[in-house]
Amino acid sequence: MTMAGETEPVLSALPHTVGILGGMGPAAGADFVRLFVQACTERMHALHIPVRDQAYPEHWLAQVPVPDRTAALEDPSPGAHQPGDALLQATGRLAALGVHAIAIACNTAHAWHGLLQERFPQLTVLHAVREVAVLLRARGVQRVGLLATQGTYRAGLYRAELLREGIECLEPPEAGRERLMQGIYDGVKAGDLELARRCFSDVAQALRADAGAQVIVMGCTEIPLALTEADAGVALVNPAQVLAEALAREAYAAVPAAS
Amino acid sequence: MTMAGETEPVLSALPHTVGILGGMGPAAGADFVRLFVQACTERMHALHIPVRDQAYPEHWLAQVPVPDRTAALEDPSPGAHQPGDALLQATGRLAALGVHAIAIACNTAHAWHGLLQERFPQLTVLHAVREVAVLLRARGVQRVGLLATQGTYRAGLYRAELLREGIECLEPPEAGRERLMQGIYDGVKAGDLELARRCFSDVAQALRADAGAQVIVMGCTEIPLALTEADAGVALVNPAQVLAEALAREAYAAVPAAS
Repeated sequence: MTMAGETEPVLSALPHTVGILGGMGPAAGADFVRLFVQACTERMHALHIPVRDQAYPEHWLAQVPVPDRTAALEDPSPGAHQPGDALLQATGRLAALGVHAIAIACNTAHAWHGLLQERFPQLTVLHAVREVAVLLRARGVQRVGLLATQGTYRAGLYRAELLREGIECLEPPEAGRERLMQGIYDGVKAGDLELARRCFSDVAQALRADAGAQVIVMGCTEIPLALTEADAGVALVNPAQVLAEALAREAYAAVPAAS
Repeated sequence: MTMAGETEPVLSALPHTVGILGGMGPAAGADFVRLFVQACTERMHALHIPVRDQAYPEHWLAQVPVPDRTAALEDPSPGAHQPGDALLQATGRLAALGVHAIAIACNTAHAWHGLLQERFPQLTVLHAVREVAVLLRARGVQRVGLLATQGTYRAGLYRAELLREGIECLEPPEAGRERLMQGIYDGVKAGDLELARRCFSDVAQALRADAGAQVIVMGCTEIPLALTEADAGVALVNPAQVLAEALAREAYAAVPAAS
């Protein structure tokens, strides 16, 4: 801890600058910044660093228009509706701002994670789904229910990463998936949170009661904006929070604990 | 509205890119993005534009370390603790990203508004305090109680702008100001929201009961994070919300209403 009258901590102890790729949707991007700031406060407590504005890592949020991710995964023909170009442009601009690592504040957009990491080898592009799978394995969870977009189900983003950790991924039948899309698009994205809450909690309760899910992963950043554990009747995991904690760890990776 | 099969709206109808200067504190910056996204949704409803991710304006949030604003206003000698340089650097980087207008997500930092607007004449740098004064005059308010930092009181930011609109600005005595600083620094910035709530509501209630304030302006972006109208016992105005609505108006200024 710095004593009164001492100089500020040396530059080498400053946290890294990090970036957040948002806009998918914008409300979820804003909420991700909130979760990241909270995760940074917790990192500072863990490192015994006094919490003050200037001790947070510099971070930039890019909320850019990105073509619909699920629509693109359904129709992969080249054209203006492909999200890859918009994601690459925003990542390039974050790289120009000097970020060390980035987080993608959208589950479905992780279908383009490999492209971003390959084109920007100088950055650490965090992978939300991998972070969640590793966390659930550490907690000993074996059967996970997944709430997500049609794009995330079709791309198999969670299935593959959970399987790698030996965890079964339970997905709702087609009617449930359509109900989730209704909650995401007609609910959260259109501002009707009550409709969203009903859609999400119906599907979550069915995954618990019919399929035996021990935990539900809210695998779309819009879902936590309208669903609580009380609504769902089962433990919830918010990948945005897991990802925000991972980004805070990256930012403070070079900062030693204060004595 | 675009019919199915038609092309996307022409470029000239796209909203302007805008920027948010944050980090003062970071939690307030994150909350400002939430308010801005909400204000954009309301603009789209007013303009009869279908609400979807791609219809939001591109926006960038810069959360950069800025030396303490109140400390700098108390000791204006040149040196590393002056916020002006950090604010100018972040504004320059937002300008390089192509923003058309910026909002400063900190009341006290408006002491440097003139500097930023003078050095960046190509940008519209919105002024939160002016936006609030104009709004209160339109509502016919005559006596306003101000909760703020010592820096904002000393710089007379609200006093001057409210007076220009013929509104009296009621400020707490020294003991009340110190209690507010405790709520801001030991409360919100240090993560103790319950302490913050007690500090803020005590001072708000005194301004209403002793000084006859009709409305309380929460003139520090940390205050709305811990104070509700139920706590304060009087109508509250959040300048961050007023500023977020002004930024949304700037972003959609060139977008015609859909039929």
